[in-house]
Amino acid sequence: MATVPLIDESAANAQVRAVFDDIRATRKVDWINNFWKALANHPPTLRRIWQGLKEVMAPGALDPLTKELIYLAVSINNGCVYCTASHGAAAKRLGMNEEMLGELIAVVGMANQTNRLADGYRVPVDERFENLF
Amino acid sequence: MATVPLIDESAANAQVRAVFDDIRATRKVDWINNFWKALANHPPTLRRIWQGLKEVMAPGALDPLTKELIYLAVSINNGCVYCTASHGAAAKRLGMNEEMLGELIAVVGMANQTNRLADGYRVPVDERFENLF
Amino acid sequence: MATVPLIDESAANAQVRAVFDDIRATRKVDWINNFWKALANHPPTLRRIWQGLKEVMAPGALDPLTKELIYLAVSINNGCVYCTASHGAAAKRLGMNEEMLGELIAVVGMANQTNRLADGYRVPVDERFENLF
Amino acid sequence: MATVPLIDESAANAQVRAVFDDIRATRKVDWINNFWKALANHPPTLRRIWQGLKEVMAPGALDPLTKELIYLAVSINNGCVYCTASHGAAAKRLGMNEEMLGELIAVVGMANQTNRLADGYRVPVDERFENLF
Amino acid sequence: MATVPLIDESAANAQVRAVFDDIRATRKVDWINNFWKALANHPPTLRRIWQGLKEVMAPGALDPLTKELIYLAVSINNGCVYCTASHGAAAKRLGMNEEMLGELIAVVGMANQTNRLADGYRVPVDERFENLF
Amino acid sequence: MATVPLIDESAANAQVRAVFDDIRATRKVDWINNFWKALANHPPTLRRIWQGLKEVMAPGALDPLTKELIYLAVSINNGCVYCTASHGAAAKRLGMNEEMLGELIAVVGMANQTNRLADGYRVPVDERFENLF
Repeated sequence: MATVPLIDESAANAQVRAVFDDIRATRKVDWINNFWKALANHPPTLRRIWQGLKEVMAPGALDPLTKELIYLAVSINNGCVYCTASHGAAAKRLGMNEEMLGELIAVVGMANQTNRLADGYRVPVDERFENLF
Repeated sequence: MATVPLIDESAANAQVRAVFDDIRATRKVDWINNFWKALANHPPTLRRIWQGLKEVMAPGALDPLTKELIYLAVSINNGCVYCTASHGAAAKRLGMNEEMLGELIAVVGMANQTNRLADGYRVPVDERFENLF
Repeated sequence: MATVPLIDESAANAQVRAVFDDIRATRKVDWINNFWKALANHPPTLRRIWQGLKEVMAPGALDPLTKELIYLAVSINNGCVYCTASHGAAAKRLGMNEEMLGELIAVVGMANQTNRLADGYRVPVDERFENLF
Repeated sequence: MATVPLIDESAANAQVRAVFDDIRATRKVDWINNFWKALANHPPTLRRIWQGLKEVMAPGALDPLTKELIYLAVSINNGCVYCTASHGAAAKRLGMNEEMLGELIAVVGMANQTNRLADGYRVPVDERFENLF
Repeated sequence: MATVPLIDESAANAQVRAVFDDIRATRKVDWINNFWKALANHPPTLRRIWQGLKEVMAPGALDPLTKELIYLAVSINNGCVYCTASHGAAAKRLGMNEEMLGELIAVVGMANQTNRLADGYRVPVDERFENLF
Repeated sequence: MATVPLIDESAANAQVRAVFDDIRATRKVDWINNFWKALANHPPTLRRIWQGLKEVMAPGALDPLTKELIYLAVSINNGCVYCTASHGAAAKRLGMNEEMLGELIAVVGMANQTNRLADGYRVPVDERFENLF
């Protein structure tokens, strides 16, 4: 399938190159994957999304691998082929092995099954579950 | 909103009671939440789902808390109010604190944003990402 | 939750009343459910949707009950509370009993589970499955 | 797109081969489709999903064709290419002809349209629809 | 991937040809895109969908470009590759430039993010927002 | 349904109050809606989302009303009750009248219908549609 033009370093303006540099430095990699080259068609989106992603995925109360597992699970759930591939690769780099991936996919599948059962049966929330925070 | 009848212990047949007993024993709790009382309207579904859930959520290559975090993320993603409440409570019981929940929701939100960007720009998968396994 | 104004017969213009009359006559009922009263806020939508629905749900190669079961399954799948309630009621009127509903919900749940597994594992379509028509 | 390794009979362990044998025997076919070869990367998932699917899709209050039609409708609804192809093929084997498929797709499309209308207009559920069971 | 047969003019019956003629005349184009050739496998669906689309997309309180932008946004949101491509092309024909597309995709991404945040935090609707109409 | 605690001005720390002040100043309103009070449970998310939203929704190649219409369409599409209410209100403030809302909902419904038809028939993208940019 045809796609958006992918903006390479050579074609990028200074604002885009600065983001590309930060991506490489932050991730300690020497290349830029297609997602960012596509966003570079709209530089304010490129900058905003990279800043947001960098902040959200930084180590915090959840460690980086757990965050990538959640990201991967959501991407599978949304049927996003690109994000499944890219965040699958990221999770592997952080230590996800095949067994962990197998279990993650099993949980995603099971959750989708029970989500529909709960909706189909219109199950009322138990009072004891009401206070999530 | 009206709902499916919730089958209590007293109204349950032997097959249903056996599942209820196993739920309490496995989870070390003394009550049955509405989801299972709703599934008890169709006993083969009750048994099958409980067996599957018990197997999928058991400790494995992923620890139980990580599994619950993934389950919660998918339930939020699907807009399933019941499962968000029940798996939110389960994750808290296993140690999820407010900061972790805040970060989890942030990752779910960010993943949804970038999933749509990747689809909107129809970004082709990088060759380096192709081998997930 | 507040809602759109529900347009009653008395407040309806001639075009809306004509649709309401056709709904009652076609379905052999003596009342109008809220969905149509809500659509009556935009009469061209009311007319177009009713005409389309009447045509699509008429007996054909699939009998009316099978069509309602499919409609209900999709509505559960989309988490649409209103349509789950209204098409659940319609399916019951056409003969769906509790056992059938239990099996329908089980199929919807299972399909959601395997849909995510197929996407998660990025399973390539078998050549033998390629010719759906 | 690259994919998960597909585990063939020759590479499968005893547990996987037993499931493959049961799939062939139950379905009276002499081959294994890619979905199961992909799940074989995680044998407990392979076994659990096959057992569940076999139970859910067995003849019951709903006949096997009706169940496949519902499965196909949900798979189309979720945009799952693999499941649309495989369950489309399964439904054809059980008697779905082109006219029936045309009507099924029309119902799925119509349901999606009215689901969004009901949500967009925030239509309150009619009291008469409240008792689904 | 294999697909449904695409019905060309030469293979079409009179009813299908009449719709094809109306599509060309209404849109002032000299060709028929694949979507309609696919629907022609089920002529009543072809006719009904074309009539509906023609009515919904006609100039009204919203101008045709705004309608196409909304259509494109929903198609991206649903991950529908075909509709993203066809309504992207339609919007461009009506004046959408690259900057507008960049902003549209940014809004779609942001809405998906905040939709999940609102669901994840289970935010109650403010009273002041209750009266949409 | 219970919800997350809503953080009021009085309970907010300086970082949260600064965001609340900017929301009021930017929107020229004198109150803070529940969405932001909920996000205030996780101040970095509150700040990041507000900054992003402010940037994305500012006038650009698309005017503010068109952006709100797209936002509203996506929120309806995702079945997000809160965002449908809040962005419905925002669009009204910017000039959306009932007729426009009626047409917007009609487009969302139609797009969902044809999205599923395109997926159900697995329609291949026309070559002429391949170059979206």
